[in-house]
Amino acid sequence: MKRKLKYWGWGYEDKSLSDKETSNLLKSLTTFGISGSDKAKFPSLDSISLSESRLTPPKSLETICTKDKYERVLHTFGQSQPDSIRTFLGDFSNAPDLIAYPKNEEDIVNLFEWCGEINAALIPYGAGSSVVGGVTSDVGEQYNGTVTIDLSLLNKVLEIDEQSQAARIQGGARGPELEAGLKPSGFTLRHFPQSFEHSTLGGWIATRSGGHFATLYTHIDDLVQNITMATPVGKIQSLRVPGSGAGPSPDRLMLGSEGSLGIITEAWVRLQKKPTFKATAGFLFSNFLVAAKSVKAISQAGLYPANVRIVDNVELKINNASNGSSTLMIVSFENSDHPVDAWITRAEQCCLDNGGVIDVDWRNNPSTNQESLVGAWREAFIRMPYNREKLTPRGIISDTFETAITWDKFENFFQNVKQATELAILQTTGHKGAVSCRFSHAYPDGPAPYFAFHANSEPNRMIEDWLAIKNAASDAIIANGGTITHHHAIGRDHSKWYKKQRPLLFGKVLNRSKEYLDPKGILNPGVIVT
Amino acid sequence: MKRKLKYWGWGYEDKSLSDKETSNLLKSLTTFGISGSDKAKFPSLDSISLSESRLTPPKSLETICTKDKYERVLHTFGQSQPDSIRTFLGDFSNAPDLIAYPKNEEDIVNLFEWCGEINAALIPYGAGSSVVGGVTSDVGEQYNGTVTIDLSLLNKVLEIDEQSQAARIQGGARGPELEAGLKPSGFTLRHFPQSFEHSTLGGWIATRSGGHFATLYTHIDDLVQNITMATPVGKIQSLRVPGSGAGPSPDRLMLGSEGSLGIITEAWVRLQKKPTFKATAGFLFSNFLVAAKSVKAISQAGLYPANVRIVDNVELKINNASNGSSTLMIVSFENSDHPVDAWITRAEQCCLDNGGVIDVDWRNNPSTNQESLVGAWREAFIRMPYNREKLTPRGIISDTFETAITWDKFENFFQNVKQATELAILQTTGHKGAVSCRFSHAYPDGPAPYFAFHANSEPNRMIEDWLAIKNAASDAIIANGGTITHHHAIGRDHSKWYKKQRPLLFGKVLNRSKEYLDPKGILNPGVIVT
Repeated sequence: MKRKLKYWGWGYEDKSLSDKETSNLLKSLTTFGISGSDKAKFPSLDSISLSESRLTPPKSLETICTKDKYERVLHTFGQSQPDSIRTFLGDFSNAPDLIAYPKNEEDIVNLFEWCGEINAALIPYGAGSSVVGGVTSDVGEQYNGTVTIDLSLLNKVLEIDEQSQAARIQGGARGPELEAGLKPSGFTLRHFPQSFEHSTLGGWIATRSGGHFATLYTHIDDLVQNITMATPVGKIQSLRVPGSGAGPSPDRLMLGSEGSLGIITEAWVRLQKKPTFKATAGFLFSNFLVAAKSVKAISQAGLYPANVRIVDNVELKINNASNGSSTLMIVSFENSDHPVDAWITRAEQCCLDNGGVIDVDWRNNPSTNQESLVGAWREAFIRMPYNREKLTPRGIISDTFETAITWDKFENFFQNVKQATELAILQTTGHKGAVSCRFSHAYPDGPAPYFAFHANSEPNRMIEDWLAIKNAASDAIIANGGTITHHHAIGRDHSKWYKKQRPLLFGKVLNRSKEYLDPKGILNPGVIVT
Repeated sequence: MKRKLKYWGWGYEDKSLSDKETSNLLKSLTTFGISGSDKAKFPSLDSISLSESRLTPPKSLETICTKDKYERVLHTFGQSQPDSIRTFLGDFSNAPDLIAYPKNEEDIVNLFEWCGEINAALIPYGAGSSVVGGVTSDVGEQYNGTVTIDLSLLNKVLEIDEQSQAARIQGGARGPELEAGLKPSGFTLRHFPQSFEHSTLGGWIATRSGGHFATLYTHIDDLVQNITMATPVGKIQSLRVPGSGAGPSPDRLMLGSEGSLGIITEAWVRLQKKPTFKATAGFLFSNFLVAAKSVKAISQAGLYPANVRIVDNVELKINNASNGSSTLMIVSFENSDHPVDAWITRAEQCCLDNGGVIDVDWRNNPSTNQESLVGAWREAFIRMPYNREKLTPRGIISDTFETAITWDKFENFFQNVKQATELAILQTTGHKGAVSCRFSHAYPDGPAPYFAFHANSEPNRMIEDWLAIKNAASDAIIANGGTITHHHAIGRDHSKWYKKQRPLLFGKVLNRSKEYLDPKGILNPGVIVT
């Protein structure tokens, strides 16, 4: 029997924070003045009222479509903060009318055709992990219905080319499925976004996902050799070569298209041999901006660590990874070909030069990534997606936003965005909140800061409170020169700022691309191209 | 006084092969059965007949436009083989009517407007180094005239951000100008295509130029932080950030647009500190395919050398760099931060494991890149662009083509493309020619093979002979799965194969982008988007 996924939060029904973990989380939030006001529960499936489905699939699509209540509820939302709140409030007024599970490209073509004929909006859905409203079935009044296409049956590793270290994989393959399919070959994609367990290759490509590698090959963009995308007017398949200079890149139109131009059915991706040489070092710094200098030094040294992250004291404390007195820096190298000692030795020096203090010594410890603060934060990182289902019912807002900014602007940017968010929390909720920051990725020309915030609210005004804070943070990000998203994508939640930031004429070009590829305008309306 | 550029070949009038170099080149070609049939000269400027210019600029553009004969002749062609032959034959029937030297963006806007009004084709021209007909003023009958926009006055380094290691540079800056502007800061772009001296940043971006770095940051694509492009309907300026996941990348539409969508006026580019630690090693291999195995091993080891190139025996012999008994492999590492011994030691082992024999020992020799075969080939590489002006008048065809292919297909691809080219030379000219190969760049998933060929012909049938060989080679490339260009671009010469290889629907999208951005269809017709 298939494990059931939660409609009210992250992952499978049988997996969530333990009572102890929950109480630790709440306790650490209390030290920031944040405490839950209630312990109401998410509504049960029975208690959720859904309007009747407006759509009946034609004979040819009957076997792949369902109107099952659980399915419609599950596919109404992704994993954003407002998604969680609306789930808690039982607001399923925009539930999709049908969920389709295509088994092959032909099914997708038939769905395009049928939805075009009846003017139904069509939402491509990988595994529903969007934290920005990318799969939220809220498409406006102009459609006669909504069909969510769940791609989870297109989940095979189709071909492995060991010579070129590449594999052809279907778009609906989730992280664990994809890695399991590669495992016998000894290769791995090593694209590990925090959503790894419940996100898909096609979703990663559609949203320009950021993965495990903090430098160099940060986005899935770099790991893609070619892409096959089904559109309402036919298939786009780019040439599979290791590099090309033949005109503007077709892949780069599909990367980031967020289901608005087509559905990514498969891709050739670049693999790595499973790393056998690994080293992780941890360092403590008195504050975040000082630690950032080490990240800058390492990023500009041409060392290309797999990981180079700093996590501020607030994030460490909220997640019970430390007492909150220091910023943690994690640097790791990995390789399947040669020992990485020369690499990490130099990176370590960059940290020591900037005042870092060793957390655990990699030289004496082959499993430093599981020890001390490094290990504690790593453990917390893996569990974080499970936090929200405990917080929303208590009226505690918990959300993240992320960006990238050049080093010349970084310090001001960081102060301004943090302050704007803190101020918005205070003004909106009447209480101080907690705003934390880490770097998710780092480049020679700048970091990708990743913010998290927690704030007191009440379930009945939580959406408005969240929106006020989100508005202030997003305004501050673009006013201070950062991108509205480095790897979370645009979805419905970032659309307003994306359109401000996107070059106007490029937007016009995208609109025309959409008009051509999706002439009836049915694909994921409200995302990227309206 | 400004040094004058040759209209009949590469570089400045005062720089060409010495008599000794020329005689060595001809001698080595003789050993392949290739010998010149004549010593006629390129036509003098006086002897070239040009039809009268059809265009008179309006008052507002008078000071930046010229009809000077030398200027019109110089700007008729780029640096392709057919360009050279038509110059030799004195065929300037498609000479542009006017050459414009804009001094600022306003001039460009005025040129767009005027050319749109009078239906004149408009060819953006960086420094004219296109080897694929990208600036060849051959635009068809439907225009009332042709204006070539020479961007060489927009050649400034405008701003350097030392924190982020980036600079804002105008599109018309040639390699040496750009590096001279950066030099006081200690930074360098280190983008060194073979055309470095006579090509521009804007041209590199427009054509997705391949540079110095053989791995990792191979194309200018990777060195671009943002782009500003002027189009007939307005300006596109992308956001300057170190990374982003906000929708499809605007930069990637401009990269590779080859002047068909707009003119790149400036860009922020990523810099490096001048490398202080360098090491180069050279190895000899019994044959090219064996040497390729070392390249594969190094490319897949995560070492990211600045250079990892193999050059076959034919190329070495033609350029008098060796007696032609071996394939040469060059590996080099460079860094401004730390010694590279650990890196090159491992790369060396990859070569020795695959049967390589040391050419010069990097350990005892700080300037190995100037010694032995490595040094001899490097010297020849720098001089190569000067060869053709000595060969075309003798009826010797000399051209190059390049591609990229995954490792799984590489060996068959190499054999088939080489044989198809050799066969075409034999069938077309009645003589055997010389077809050589090197790798210009290498990726974990495949190499970028770079072929050169020389063949006997006669000036009066040289265009047809060249075209027959070019057709056969290009057909073989795409039939065997390689890209029609890895970094030379499409231009007019590759257009046929590009359109075969480009996903059909992506071509339609590009056409619609062009219709929007260049509604009168005046920008570089016949290139990328017709």
